[in-house]
Amino acid sequence: MPLFGAGIWHFGRYVDRYATDGYGPPVDTLGAIELAGQVGELSVVDLTYPFDPVDLPVERVEEALKGNGLRAIAVTPEIYTRRFSRGAFTNPDEGVRRQAIDLVSEAAEVARRLGCDYVKLWPGQDGWDYPFQADHAELWRLSLDAVRELATNFPDLRFAIEYKPREPRNTMVFSSVAKTLLGIEEIGLPNVGILLDFGHSLYGGESPADAARLAISRGRLFAIDVNDNYRGWDDDMVVGSVHLTETFEFFHALREAGWDGVWQLDQFPFREDSVEAARAGIRVMKAIHRALGIVDREALAAAQRAQDALAAQRIVQRALLSVMADQ
Amino acid sequence: MPLFGAGIWHFGRYVDRYATDGYGPPVDTLGAIELAGQVGELSVVDLTYPFDPVDLPVERVEEALKGNGLRAIAVTPEIYTRRFSRGAFTNPDEGVRRQAIDLVSEAAEVARRLGCDYVKLWPGQDGWDYPFQADHAELWRLSLDAVRELATNFPDLRFAIEYKPREPRNTMVFSSVAKTLLGIEEIGLPNVGILLDFGHSLYGGESPADAARLAISRGRLFAIDVNDNYRGWDDDMVVGSVHLTETFEFFHALREAGWDGVWQLDQFPFREDSVEAARAGIRVMKAIHRALGIVDREALAAAQRAQDALAAQRIVQRALLSVMADQ
Amino acid sequence: MPLFGAGIWHFGRYVDRYATDGYGPPVDTLGAIELAGQVGELSVVDLTYPFDPVDLPVERVEEALKGNGLRAIAVTPEIYTRRFSRGAFTNPDEGVRRQAIDLVSEAAEVARRLGCDYVKLWPGQDGWDYPFQADHAELWRLSLDAVRELATNFPDLRFAIEYKPREPRNTMVFSSVAKTLLGIEEIGLPNVGILLDFGHSLYGGESPADAARLAISRGRLFAIDVNDNYRGWDDDMVVGSVHLTETFEFFHALREAGWDGVWQLDQFPFREDSVEAARAGIRVMKAIHRALGIVDREALAAAQRAQDALAAQRIVQRALLSVMADQ
Amino acid sequence: MPLFGAGIWHFGRYVDRYATDGYGPPVDTLGAIELAGQVGELSVVDLTYPFDPVDLPVERVEEALKGNGLRAIAVTPEIYTRRFSRGAFTNPDEGVRRQAIDLVSEAAEVARRLGCDYVKLWPGQDGWDYPFQADHAELWRLSLDAVRELATNFPDLRFAIEYKPREPRNTMVFSSVAKTLLGIEEIGLPNVGILLDFGHSLYGGESPADAARLAISRGRLFAIDVNDNYRGWDDDMVVGSVHLTETFEFFHALREAGWDGVWQLDQFPFREDSVEAARAGIRVMKAIHRALGIVDREALAAAQRAQDALAAQRIVQRALLSVMADQ
Repeated sequence: MPLFGAGIWHFGRYVDRYATDGYGPPVDTLGAIELAGQVGELSVVDLTYPFDPVDLPVERVEEALKGNGLRAIAVTPEIYTRRFSRGAFTNPDEGVRRQAIDLVSEAAEVARRLGCDYVKLWPGQDGWDYPFQADHAELWRLSLDAVRELATNFPDLRFAIEYKPREPRNTMVFSSVAKTLLGIEEIGLPNVGILLDFGHSLYGGESPADAARLAISRGRLFAIDVNDNYRGWDDDMVVGSVHLTETFEFFHALREAGWDGVWQLDQFPFREDSVEAARAGIRVMKAIHRALGIVDREALAAAQRAQDALAAQRIVQRALLSVMADQ
Repeated sequence: MPLFGAGIWHFGRYVDRYATDGYGPPVDTLGAIELAGQVGELSVVDLTYPFDPVDLPVERVEEALKGNGLRAIAVTPEIYTRRFSRGAFTNPDEGVRRQAIDLVSEAAEVARRLGCDYVKLWPGQDGWDYPFQADHAELWRLSLDAVRELATNFPDLRFAIEYKPREPRNTMVFSSVAKTLLGIEEIGLPNVGILLDFGHSLYGGESPADAARLAISRGRLFAIDVNDNYRGWDDDMVVGSVHLTETFEFFHALREAGWDGVWQLDQFPFREDSVEAARAGIRVMKAIHRALGIVDREALAAAQRAQDALAAQRIVQRALLSVMADQ
Repeated sequence: MPLFGAGIWHFGRYVDRYATDGYGPPVDTLGAIELAGQVGELSVVDLTYPFDPVDLPVERVEEALKGNGLRAIAVTPEIYTRRFSRGAFTNPDEGVRRQAIDLVSEAAEVARRLGCDYVKLWPGQDGWDYPFQADHAELWRLSLDAVRELATNFPDLRFAIEYKPREPRNTMVFSSVAKTLLGIEEIGLPNVGILLDFGHSLYGGESPADAARLAISRGRLFAIDVNDNYRGWDDDMVVGSVHLTETFEFFHALREAGWDGVWQLDQFPFREDSVEAARAGIRVMKAIHRALGIVDREALAAAQRAQDALAAQRIVQRALLSVMADQ
Repeated sequence: MPLFGAGIWHFGRYVDRYATDGYGPPVDTLGAIELAGQVGELSVVDLTYPFDPVDLPVERVEEALKGNGLRAIAVTPEIYTRRFSRGAFTNPDEGVRRQAIDLVSEAAEVARRLGCDYVKLWPGQDGWDYPFQADHAELWRLSLDAVRELATNFPDLRFAIEYKPREPRNTMVFSSVAKTLLGIEEIGLPNVGILLDFGHSLYGGESPADAARLAISRGRLFAIDVNDNYRGWDDDMVVGSVHLTETFEFFHALREAGWDGVWQLDQFPFREDSVEAARAGIRVMKAIHRALGIVDREALAAAQRAQDALAAQRIVQRALLSVMADQ
């Protein structure tokens, strides 16, 4: 079995532009860790930073993780809140750009302290909303400069850029796997890579399995997140609720490429119990893991060599549609 | 087991704007019927009209159907070829509009002769491409007038409008289940209904299960077609190749509403063997039929009453992901 | 010149799931009215209810409106906040459904007091997120029952349903103009109609001009909102920032149909000054109004009769691309 | 004024899967050149190869071009017809892959003879349709190997890859500007670049202006095509019919980056007169060229430095919405 993980925000409180009073009561960092522990099958979590409350000592976080059988796989600095709403690395105000780098640097220190695998960079406010709004070359330059500076300053840490087509910006600078790889190669440092979110890839028009193999081929796939959506938006639904076959294909591609990292959840169960939603996602991931174990790999490889869609689907369905027979 | 059917075009030759020499050699009407017969599990076909060649006597078609164990469930007049490329019922030229009605009338006579369940109306060229191109009210009026005239002239036959969001027109007049129902009720005749194509509904942004129940609630669901796509276009892929769960939900909704018509294929296997593609679609439909048989209906109904997404998915996956265990 | 209006939320504080601390400081009801007044060209506003703070007396609102040269065209009850996050009219809990009707009733009393033209119903949390989650027929029934009850209880008021394809629910019950019209006719009361939001129509795959004429043809177009987006989501951008031609077509269709209501803004300027954003939207609407005045209507009508896209575009561009020449 | 050009297919006969008898009568190569000449404002054309009829001598083509005041800017080998329907460079059959390279080589000889600027590569059949159908790494390798071989064999010619998200394949190998640039840099030869089709970029979720600057920044923007669509499919509509502002932004970005190539049409006027449709596209391009001449570049640059969307739109609309005032 692979290790399972989750972004800690999975267990937090959701807000959107309509339910501005939140889809539930506030949950602070320790509360969220506690909920993550209740899932019972999670090994790691990705922690947002600053902690909530902001003065929560990192020792308390370490204790809570330990007490819940968890490890911090990553820290995600919140470079997308109000002060960064017009951009973090690409903010038109140089002072705010500096604040963004400072906040990531602080988060990097915490990640070092917690022994994380990577610092996640998700510059969701870096991009543009309107035609003609921005000089795209300048935004690109600012984005690469910022990541280069961080990766240079923390050569012992790894930085994983999570690309996403859009939201909250109408277009994000790091919008696709290929564009992000171009940027990473332009940065030219070994400790910058990609966090591939299955849902971002899907609604961005990629085949997530192909996106994964592209990042792996350049040695840049540092981590993955999984969830699901209807291909038009980042719905962050429970794994497999819509795209069972493509989720299976994604994990198959990872295995064939020898990638063996953590299978991590990034779900937003707005109206569901967050612990139960995590269990539901893990239940599906376990089913897919079983399917990987029983699928006829040789026959599938032969079908793919012949690019025989019907044969491939038959082989895959035989495995996928029988994994729960004895559950 | 339900009866299975297919549009006869499933077994024809595909052309598109790039492979203008076709994805394979020509297949005429009798050839297509022969291929449909080879599938081995089809009971009915929907025949395009005019036949190919145009002077093929209907007796020959009848014999071929019989010889292949098939029945014509419907006739589909081709009101979307060159002469109708600027519109059939809504063509700006009154003479062409008359030709469209005449062609459908001829097809209706053939349908009567063949004992079909319905005449299918798919006015794919009726709509508009550009902003400001058309007076939408006028196109609507022309569409309803034409269908009303036909349904009045053939009161013993049923006419099933197949709605579709777009293609070949950038916007079709009959674009959604609800808009088509509004039109049908405005027509005010009992023998006009809907053919609901799962794929059209899906890429039109509907939940096909909901679209089906809406049409059924008005007594207007005359027939269905199934296939699959990536939600952005009418890809006409093999059933279940992308959306296993929603295909299952669609058939579940049909059953719950007491609808028991033919399960009909509308696939376009451009690069696949058409007989094998039909078998693949039927194989998935049979699996879904088995899943309907084993799903815990009471538990599912309770989950739906509570609108409990996690419970519903768990119940559904338990059935769906085990139907091929003993295959 | 038409009257211009805006939803009061245009001047409020925006929050989303990332900038949970808001895109700016809080703005209460009186503060928002003050900002609306600063725009200088607004005549009416649509007020959300409850007011902020909740104990703000309606007299204070009336004074503020008057002091800013504004009138309340509508009241929008907030049936999409936390307590309604699992549904308002369709909540699985009957008690919450009752709360929703009570809140709308309260809002209706306020609307009556303020002399509004309509009460807006936007049940954004009524719908479903997951396949198999809901019994669609039941949700439909609950939705219609609730609106019927309200319209019956307040026969002197008009209720305008604002349909929307999705968000915050993955699918909303009232998702399109045609589906909403079907529901309204099923309700069977004269005082229920539609608020057509240009952006909702656009990203729902409709032609907004066609959607408007459909609602008008049934006598159900009570109000409109305008904004813009990239056709994939409800981006609520400034009017005309992407779709100049289709915005022009929309207003042209309204004029041709004799509809002469208020031209109302529903923009969400997350990162812009809200007063300036309103002025920008009005500036574009005024340009479009001028274009309506100079477009060659007869030539355009002739082009539309011939369904001549090239002629129509030429006529339209000649008007649209010259309206700012003397500004 | 820039030079204007068009793909010769603009003047050919369109076919699709419904109007299999074509949207008009056949047009051969010389006939299409004649129509291109009638437009009156075209300087160059991109010629598909083989010519129609296949034995048409290149001398006849040269004469026809000369007689119509045209030059061949490019040759596009038809590696997407029936024999390549399961792939050209990525066909599972090595023999077919060889045929594809041979056909491109022949076309390259013709391009050399005609003094073209580039050979266009549009491997529209290279990709996949179904989940699990292909080994994406293998398709990628085959694609790059083929282009590398061609570019090595014809070092004096330039090869421009036209990327496209999909159609006719559900997913194409060269699907985005960034992915294609990654491939080109992996190929490692100076004479491979990109043809950026505005519409492909738009419906692929890119900002075309940003895509252009990315390709230019790597010295790889060899050519452009323009047209328009509704962002969901490659509708190949007349330039500016939907996205006036973003078309303007695209040409603005080209100018700011110092790119001064041909402004080339790739429209598919299925139901319009092809000569008139070309004139319509050129008419809009001329208007945009005038807008470039009058837009306040300094003010716009300042707005972009401040990422001020409202200011940028105001500046841009002032130019765009006045360019036809004196026409």
